[in-house]
Amino acid sequence: MSDRYADVRKVARDLDVDAVALVPGPNFTRSMGQSFMSHERPFVVVIPAKGDPAAIVPNLELGSWAQVNFEGAVFDWRDQVGYQPAFDALANHMPLNSLAVEGQVMRVFVHHALKAANPDLRIVDGEKAISGLRAIKTDDDIAALQAAIDISERALTRVLEGVRVGQTETEIEQTLVQALFAEGADDLAFGPIVAAGDGSARPHAHARADYAVKAGDALLFDFGARKHGFAADITRTVFVGHATDEGQEVYETVLAANKAGHDTAKPGVTAHDIDDAVTNVLEASRFADRIRTKTGHGLGREVHEAPYIMRGNHEVMRQGMVFTNEPGLYEIDNFGVRIEDDVLITEDGCRSLTSFPKDLTIVGSN
Amino acid sequence: MSDRYADVRKVARDLDVDAVALVPGPNFTRSMGQSFMSHERPFVVVIPAKGDPAAIVPNLELGSWAQVNFEGAVFDWRDQVGYQPAFDALANHMPLNSLAVEGQVMRVFVHHALKAANPDLRIVDGEKAISGLRAIKTDDDIAALQAAIDISERALTRVLEGVRVGQTETEIEQTLVQALFAEGADDLAFGPIVAAGDGSARPHAHARADYAVKAGDALLFDFGARKHGFAADITRTVFVGHATDEGQEVYETVLAANKAGHDTAKPGVTAHDIDDAVTNVLEASRFADRIRTKTGHGLGREVHEAPYIMRGNHEVMRQGMVFTNEPGLYEIDNFGVRIEDDVLITEDGCRSLTSFPKDLTIVGSN
Repeated sequence: MSDRYADVRKVARDLDVDAVALVPGPNFTRSMGQSFMSHERPFVVVIPAKGDPAAIVPNLELGSWAQVNFEGAVFDWRDQVGYQPAFDALANHMPLNSLAVEGQVMRVFVHHALKAANPDLRIVDGEKAISGLRAIKTDDDIAALQAAIDISERALTRVLEGVRVGQTETEIEQTLVQALFAEGADDLAFGPIVAAGDGSARPHAHARADYAVKAGDALLFDFGARKHGFAADITRTVFVGHATDEGQEVYETVLAANKAGHDTAKPGVTAHDIDDAVTNVLEASRFADRIRTKTGHGLGREVHEAPYIMRGNHEVMRQGMVFTNEPGLYEIDNFGVRIEDDVLITEDGCRSLTSFPKDLTIVGSN
Repeated sequence: MSDRYADVRKVARDLDVDAVALVPGPNFTRSMGQSFMSHERPFVVVIPAKGDPAAIVPNLELGSWAQVNFEGAVFDWRDQVGYQPAFDALANHMPLNSLAVEGQVMRVFVHHALKAANPDLRIVDGEKAISGLRAIKTDDDIAALQAAIDISERALTRVLEGVRVGQTETEIEQTLVQALFAEGADDLAFGPIVAAGDGSARPHAHARADYAVKAGDALLFDFGARKHGFAADITRTVFVGHATDEGQEVYETVLAANKAGHDTAKPGVTAHDIDDAVTNVLEASRFADRIRTKTGHGLGREVHEAPYIMRGNHEVMRQGMVFTNEPGLYEIDNFGVRIEDDVLITEDGCRSLTSFPKDLTIVGSN
């Protein structure tokens, strides 16, 4: 019988720790086959390098937990009693000297409960190795991503048809959100960014109820549907009515950088190589001082995951990885342009899972 | 000039620590007046008991950060360099012996970066005191909550009109989500729960694409819109076609418990008192073995926040607190019933912000 924790156990051995802890989130969902909420209630699975796993489960989740067919000891706890006794019981049941945790997922209160139960426990941040198990996508993963992307692109088509001068950013955002669900999204991958004019210069802008789009504005959409647990993440920047000369030149520069990323990505190159190819194009332009971000990030169950596409990251790209290729140029108080594709590393190159047109597009002119 | 950090500074003094750290999330949004995303990038504001605050800000957020009019030192960092130097610089700039953090919000990788910059730093979990600053709602907060609730109730009305035997849980969930946005939601407060039959017995069930609702099923909706940063959280359980005798009896028991909570809540009683009144009703019934949860939780910017309405929590309820009154009875493999209102503590009692009818309701019978 195959051991469904074999890859997690290997991480424990590679990191030279006794065990790996998973808390609700993408790694937990992948290993346990089902997603759970955590909120204020600690919920932890501990998978040792060898031997049976064990879990701390909020009592009210036992019904859902029964569906995962867990093979190890379960220490459940009720709100009325609190969670520390369950951590103490786990520490007695499975004595550990060292434990790798997901540093970007586990919160400090769980860290404290682990330490309170076992003050000598050495807790190391195993985020990179643990989440790295999700870096190579399976065929099912890719199918789910493609479904999320297709929904997102159909929604954007609908929205662009309806944009008019005078609409507010929040009105356009509402239209986008409704279109995503109408096209079949299970959820939003993240709160969408709909940003026009000077708003487009802020990479993580919020839509404004008091900003009406006007002719000449850049209008940036960064959004995605979630489907079957996987997240799309797409950016397109269009212009309202017309594009200024500066707008066109910035747009073509960003598009050339995006193409350089596509031309570079293949198995064997590093994340550094891709960011370097992309950023070189931006740096060679007269807009070099508008660079504010790295090229991209891995994409899958999480919107931001490994591999991070940036200079200095010498992680080697491998077949089955998916990353965002999203160069941008941003001038504060002026405007920004970003173009983002979701790209799959194939056997001998790469293939963009996003297919929405990237030619400079004018909307709302009729 | 008023000090916008006065209440946070008081928490530092009350906890006898040198400073409080806030990371993006509800407390950060409240204190800084704007929400930010964090993902893989550390973003921390440190507010000392006395003196100027300081912040660690991802470089790409500087444009948005400019809008918060921050008065202290800012240590920004770029992806290409990494974040540890910014933590080191902050530690030099503001030497600290002790720091309170939000244990349920801050993740372990930030904790590790703080300790790496200052190994002797004593980090304490100040979650309760820090988030406690949000417990008393302002008039603006209540207006936002009411808007989120009104949207949610209009959406549920639409959905119940359309339920038919043979629809799947996921079909009904899709209808609900679309109705929430059509009614004006900014976002979902959380992934909604739409659970019928045995699914209703799992407090945090996921909608199933392969379960079609059938006559006699309990059908549970636990969901809410988010509006202006605030989250609604409502549960209603209806019956499809008809209710069994057992279904009716369970429903009336849960409704009586819900009413006991409403009758008990007022300034001066404790969270324990409310849970006790509610749970006593459930325990006195012949379904006592179906109790799986506490009565509720605070509600505001977060779906789950203080005060937690459970036995043993002797926190005193005060005017302006909002909590969920959500007793339920759940029998695994059979069915569950939950009725959840969002309740405001008023000057001399309480008022339910939710007004959706609670009489036993049969849907899909035409």
